[in-house]
Amino acid sequence: MNILFKNVRVITMDDEMPYLENAYVVVSDKKISYVGTTMPEGEFSRIIDASGKVMMPGFVNTHTHIPMTLFRGLSDDCELSDWLFNHIFPAEDKLTGEKVLAGTKLALAEMIASGTTSFSDSYFFTDEIAEATVQSGICANLSRSIVGNGEDFENMPSVSEMKRLLEYVKENGDGRVIADISIHAEYTTESLCRIKTAEYAKKNNLILQIHTSETEAEHKNCIEKYGKTPVELFASEGLLEGTHPLLAHCCYITENDMEILKSYDGHIAHCPMSNLKLASGVAPVPEMMRRGVNVTLGTDGVASNNNTDMFEEMKLFAVLHKGIEKKATVTDAYVALKIATANGNLAQGRKNCGKIAEGYFANLILVDFERPHLVPCHNVISNIVYAAKGSDVVMTMVHGRVLYENNEFKTIDIEKAMYNVKGIK
Amino acid sequence: MNILFKNVRVITMDDEMPYLENAYVVVSDKKISYVGTTMPEGEFSRIIDASGKVMMPGFVNTHTHIPMTLFRGLSDDCELSDWLFNHIFPAEDKLTGEKVLAGTKLALAEMIASGTTSFSDSYFFTDEIAEATVQSGICANLSRSIVGNGEDFENMPSVSEMKRLLEYVKENGDGRVIADISIHAEYTTESLCRIKTAEYAKKNNLILQIHTSETEAEHKNCIEKYGKTPVELFASEGLLEGTHPLLAHCCYITENDMEILKSYDGHIAHCPMSNLKLASGVAPVPEMMRRGVNVTLGTDGVASNNNTDMFEEMKLFAVLHKGIEKKATVTDAYVALKIATANGNLAQGRKNCGKIAEGYFANLILVDFERPHLVPCHNVISNIVYAAKGSDVVMTMVHGRVLYENNEFKTIDIEKAMYNVKGIK
Repeated sequence: MNILFKNVRVITMDDEMPYLENAYVVVSDKKISYVGTTMPEGEFSRIIDASGKVMMPGFVNTHTHIPMTLFRGLSDDCELSDWLFNHIFPAEDKLTGEKVLAGTKLALAEMIASGTTSFSDSYFFTDEIAEATVQSGICANLSRSIVGNGEDFENMPSVSEMKRLLEYVKENGDGRVIADISIHAEYTTESLCRIKTAEYAKKNNLILQIHTSETEAEHKNCIEKYGKTPVELFASEGLLEGTHPLLAHCCYITENDMEILKSYDGHIAHCPMSNLKLASGVAPVPEMMRRGVNVTLGTDGVASNNNTDMFEEMKLFAVLHKGIEKKATVTDAYVALKIATANGNLAQGRKNCGKIAEGYFANLILVDFERPHLVPCHNVISNIVYAAKGSDVVMTMVHGRVLYENNEFKTIDIEKAMYNVKGIK
Repeated sequence: MNILFKNVRVITMDDEMPYLENAYVVVSDKKISYVGTTMPEGEFSRIIDASGKVMMPGFVNTHTHIPMTLFRGLSDDCELSDWLFNHIFPAEDKLTGEKVLAGTKLALAEMIASGTTSFSDSYFFTDEIAEATVQSGICANLSRSIVGNGEDFENMPSVSEMKRLLEYVKENGDGRVIADISIHAEYTTESLCRIKTAEYAKKNNLILQIHTSETEAEHKNCIEKYGKTPVELFASEGLLEGTHPLLAHCCYITENDMEILKSYDGHIAHCPMSNLKLASGVAPVPEMMRRGVNVTLGTDGVASNNNTDMFEEMKLFAVLHKGIEKKATVTDAYVALKIATANGNLAQGRKNCGKIAEGYFANLILVDFERPHLVPCHNVISNIVYAAKGSDVVMTMVHGRVLYENNEFKTIDIEKAMYNVKGIK
């Protein structure tokens, strides 16, 4: 299969040549085989005239709990502990595989329609999550969230589930859906559990996701309990060495924590919307970036966002830190776009992803610029970051396969997906 | 003309009865003549089955400079003074009436399509702004921004323009487009100019808009120059008495300023996105609300936003102050919705606006809830505030007239509007 896009404006995310006008892009099977401004030779199974549209790498959402789509709007505007203990945990107690499957399908549809081509998830019921994710055609790093004391680790049901996930994606994931490992958080695990989980990650060369320093209370309690920040604790327990750690939130990490993370090539999943909405605070992201830590972007679960629109998240990232640091040059549109795309691919360990360039995986989206809020277009990247929204996406392609085009889903029965979720009591 | 909406979910914004399922709403000429859950009697010129849709009052955007749509993405990510003096002011120097007319038409289309039914504007070239606004069918409080020293006030070209605007809307505005008065800011005017402008507002019983304490530097410089905060200065100059003041930004106002504003029944146009993007900071809005000052919401000009989507602004308002105050209960979805709708109507001096209730003007929108990111719907107001976006609006009605329906503009030639703006050099 050879698809030719013509007359397309391309944000390549290649620093050497970030933007092309009137370009041609060819997708051959899973990858991009040509990008340029002269018409390529060859026969094409499909020619797409992308006049008026902008092509860019798809978004990478590095922190999600996708079945939580079921809890959209279930509880808002209350304190975190009230939210968690009186609303979310009781709702999670009633989850079944069937419900999770329904929620996952709808979440996948929402992400695909708004331009996300890859995500990193941690949750439970990963049998169902993996099944739906593989079927959908999207890229994902899935993980089973581990909690507990770690005694009799091998016989913990969550560990069995984690192992099934690994087997399943090895068999069915085609390198597109892969497995990560997830320690839920410091405050929901004992040291033994964390160490055993990390050992498992190392042995299988998998990325380790951990919720880290999300709230001030969590951060302070950890210091009180261990005399160490969560990041210091994780480092001292050997969790960060060789596990390609992806730490979510990090609202309260210190400069020393940042240096530790950098020394282990760690990545941060920054979730500004969720951190604001749950009143957790604002992560010191400009300082992380100044110190060279790889910052990526996540929406978190829909229960605390309440959608998965990466355009919203990216714009919030781009403006928030300017306002907090009272310095407009602290970030810019290009950095925001990179954080929302290529940086995420890096954290997912995905090579040849995150650019519109020859040899890269065709994980890309088309954004319709013939809309009132995207005119005029003095600067394409500015319009993408500061003016566009998820609904401007008119095509989402993953590994060369069109998953969504002009409001039509190619791999998900959207009417059924919405109907099934509505029917859940 | 009698339009019946049936099977509609209604967010009434009536505190007594904020939400109705399976309701009927009748619009007779400019106003709502029936809201209830039993089928009304009568003959209808049109019956709209609004199954799957949510009706709510349209948004009121209380701080705009709508022709600045022409500068979308012209300059971002630089310091305010660089932005203003090296990019925006030079671009404004090249404006003509023709360009402003084109920019205004496109801005109106963008606002109408994303659910705004009324806005408060201050700019120049108000002849053209008024003409396009009257034609579009939207509600607006338009004003000519006044700057200068105020000597020979009556012969200032801006004052002549202001007077022409008053005459024009009196003749053509039908109570839908009305005139406000605008003092640009403390730092761009001399005392004499401010006093004369305010006198004009009082004499004509018009609302006075002023940019106030937007940046820390502006606020501090004023204290240095006058020994007073901008709000204290305005009060001492008699600008706030009898002028129904609508002060934009107010990022640095003090608790005393808030008390002063409250004593004059003043209103605040909070512009969180613009304040973050221009690195101005975060206005102390929860404190304003605790003190009973009427807070409203504005996008500011598109040059510093970079769109006019009030859903974005409302969500940002709803989450931002939770994160800043580290308290999730500091605002809630219902308050956010009120600030974005009814509170704005109040600041605009518009009676019988901002509710879906009998006798109220039919300024309303329909939002399509049959979309992946709005399912499930545990709470309609939560989904509107935290999950929806401007593109979910499928109908915008102002004073009983449908201005936009299912991607079609009834009063604006959208292709021409986009084409004209693209052609501006």
